[in-house]
Amino acid sequence: MEKLSKVCWVPVKEDSDFSIHNLPYGIFSADGVPKTAGVAIGDYIMDLNWFQLNGYFNELQLPEGIFRNEYLNDFIGTGKENWTALRTRIQSILTEEENSHLLRSTGMYRQDMMRMHIPVRVGDYTDFYSSEEHATNVGTMFRGKDNALMPNWKHMPVAYHGRASSIIVSGQPIHRPKGQMMPPDSEKPVFGPSRLLDIELEMAFIVGKDSSLGQSISTEEAEDHLFGMVIFNDWSARDIQKWEYVPLGPFLGKNFASSISPWVVTMDALDQFRTHGPQQDPKVLPYLEYDGDKSYDIELEVYLQPNGGEPFKITKSNHKYLYWTMAQQLAHHTVNGCNINIGDLCASGTISGPTPDSYGSLLELTWRGEKPIRLPDGSERKFLEDHDTVIMKAYCRKNEIRIGFGEVKTQLLPAL
Amino acid sequence: MEKLSKVCWVPVKEDSDFSIHNLPYGIFSADGVPKTAGVAIGDYIMDLNWFQLNGYFNELQLPEGIFRNEYLNDFIGTGKENWTALRTRIQSILTEEENSHLLRSTGMYRQDMMRMHIPVRVGDYTDFYSSEEHATNVGTMFRGKDNALMPNWKHMPVAYHGRASSIIVSGQPIHRPKGQMMPPDSEKPVFGPSRLLDIELEMAFIVGKDSSLGQSISTEEAEDHLFGMVIFNDWSARDIQKWEYVPLGPFLGKNFASSISPWVVTMDALDQFRTHGPQQDPKVLPYLEYDGDKSYDIELEVYLQPNGGEPFKITKSNHKYLYWTMAQQLAHHTVNGCNINIGDLCASGTISGPTPDSYGSLLELTWRGEKPIRLPDGSERKFLEDHDTVIMKAYCRKNEIRIGFGEVKTQLLPAL
Repeated sequence: MEKLSKVCWVPVKEDSDFSIHNLPYGIFSADGVPKTAGVAIGDYIMDLNWFQLNGYFNELQLPEGIFRNEYLNDFIGTGKENWTALRTRIQSILTEEENSHLLRSTGMYRQDMMRMHIPVRVGDYTDFYSSEEHATNVGTMFRGKDNALMPNWKHMPVAYHGRASSIIVSGQPIHRPKGQMMPPDSEKPVFGPSRLLDIELEMAFIVGKDSSLGQSISTEEAEDHLFGMVIFNDWSARDIQKWEYVPLGPFLGKNFASSISPWVVTMDALDQFRTHGPQQDPKVLPYLEYDGDKSYDIELEVYLQPNGGEPFKITKSNHKYLYWTMAQQLAHHTVNGCNINIGDLCASGTISGPTPDSYGSLLELTWRGEKPIRLPDGSERKFLEDHDTVIMKAYCRKNEIRIGFGEVKTQLLPAL
Repeated sequence: MEKLSKVCWVPVKEDSDFSIHNLPYGIFSADGVPKTAGVAIGDYIMDLNWFQLNGYFNELQLPEGIFRNEYLNDFIGTGKENWTALRTRIQSILTEEENSHLLRSTGMYRQDMMRMHIPVRVGDYTDFYSSEEHATNVGTMFRGKDNALMPNWKHMPVAYHGRASSIIVSGQPIHRPKGQMMPPDSEKPVFGPSRLLDIELEMAFIVGKDSSLGQSISTEEAEDHLFGMVIFNDWSARDIQKWEYVPLGPFLGKNFASSISPWVVTMDALDQFRTHGPQQDPKVLPYLEYDGDKSYDIELEVYLQPNGGEPFKITKSNHKYLYWTMAQQLAHHTVNGCNINIGDLCASGTISGPTPDSYGSLLELTWRGEKPIRLPDGSERKFLEDHDTVIMKAYCRKNEIRIGFGEVKTQLLPAL
């Protein structure tokens, strides 16, 4: 357990996601402030470029100007030792009382004055399918209870490639996608706005170290390739998806947008929230075996906010429910020699918990629309309506330490 | 039909792919020559950086140093009018007799002295499935003749997202991938090198103009977004693919490598080889309708070269056999608002012709291994053997004009 004997001179509320134990990285800007890497602390952002220019990171020998950057990729590329060293240095700066005047310096911005951006340039984006509860729920709906899980599911972390270009950051609204659908009572496909627009509650990790083509990463080595994590909303148009996805998988039902939270919480910060993963039965193949606690206890919440209304919590799940760990996902992804690059993003798949109030999509929460969700304003939802806003939150708590991911918040606008 | 009244002062053999009518772009380098954009002509490469520095492109107002570049993306980003203007200018330079001394200048390199590289930085890579013959062949093998084509196939150009990081250039060998497979007689999956390693004969187009999130590109507008094309070998491990691909599509069975030819043949060069596409029945939805000739008559050949042996032609197909045109592919890809970026690569899917000697994969050519191919050295192939080399070629011929893509040539090395 991480211990910090001194007190942070930035005021941090008890329920803040951005305590001294967290220190997530993001890219911010404002009018007159070009895109720059920062670290969130309380309600503030440390301008890492300012701190570097003013000599606070001198002993780290980071490349000059590396934080005046559109993305974190260059910093991530300096290597894991630098990530940890910078984190330790920032914790020192923020707890040395003689630095407290910096709160009024131009090195610290209020978060609410800044715009946040996509933190990394994503090379490739992969979406796993690693929640047994989610795969079972969806399988039960479409193939019945006895054939819910496909035969391969417990032998490998099933995944597919998604679209990197349409990954957007919290706050950017999306438009309801249009596409082809095959209504149940129709003989021909129809074209129009999706009627079954859904969310998927996911977390994603960001690759921190390249591998080369032909190289396989073991579950042991995998953690050296993880930089940090974000919340991930895998928007899904169920009607478009259903008509298109056999035999080559999801395409237009997914690639119109995926939303992520702007702050990358590092694996260093998450380290104290490790927990053991679920028992895996049947035994996995040797390349998927692993030792130690490689799951993470991260509490997850989703809120639906109708137009002009208040956010209403529609589900509560936890990252630890995932059947496959990130180490296994990365070992599987590269076992055939597929290369990964800094900034690649791997999402978990919908994280559903064991009970109906912990499912990670509207498809499951309303059981294909059979059990609508009733909102406080009296309205019902089977799937999303235009102008609904979806907010996903994630945080870890243990022994009075709290770190969090902030949120990913996205409004759905009508089809263009 | 393009007319060039003057003769090119670079010697170009009659069967050369790189006539004055072609002028494809690529990225070359050598010891002491950093990566630079060039144009192929005969057996030579025009060093575009040299020609720019020496004032030959002055009237085009291209950004300084744009051709001393790891990728073509920046040049592509200058816009379609510039592509056409540069092409016209290069045709002038190469046919003005007073420039013929340049053949002995440092602006012209012999191709065989240079290394070629991936020509574009690929953002996202999409693989379509647009050959009716291929989809029917594969469907027949796996689901029987009556259910060969899925119900969606004739209504949309089916596609999935592939891996951008593992796209490699001609000449770079690959290793046989390892992975999970479920042998027919086994109760449990096994792990090891793929035994059913296959090729897929495809062509790919490179996106030349961005679209923004939410924007749909019509079939009419689509051609403004196409820069050029390359040959694409979509390596496929059939046994890995078969066990993993339900329900989310191909992943490790494909993403260990895809090989492309180094020279990007522009749509301007291909313009005179337009032809009409196949009759589409049933009628497509309005967003997929198009006018004019949007298919291309490009002859395709695949050679298999056993270790130490000669290349042996195993199939001959044509790009015009594709059911769905590139304009339809792009209209479909963006109909939901998915954004595309310069450098994105969209492959056609295996291009199989109507006869068994025109199929585009070993899976089809040997009908799942039932009809092995006999090579001149007396050996047989159901799928590839270690140290086999595969060569794909593509070219267009009409009225004594020939333009070609060169080749994509890749040797298969044993598993690591």
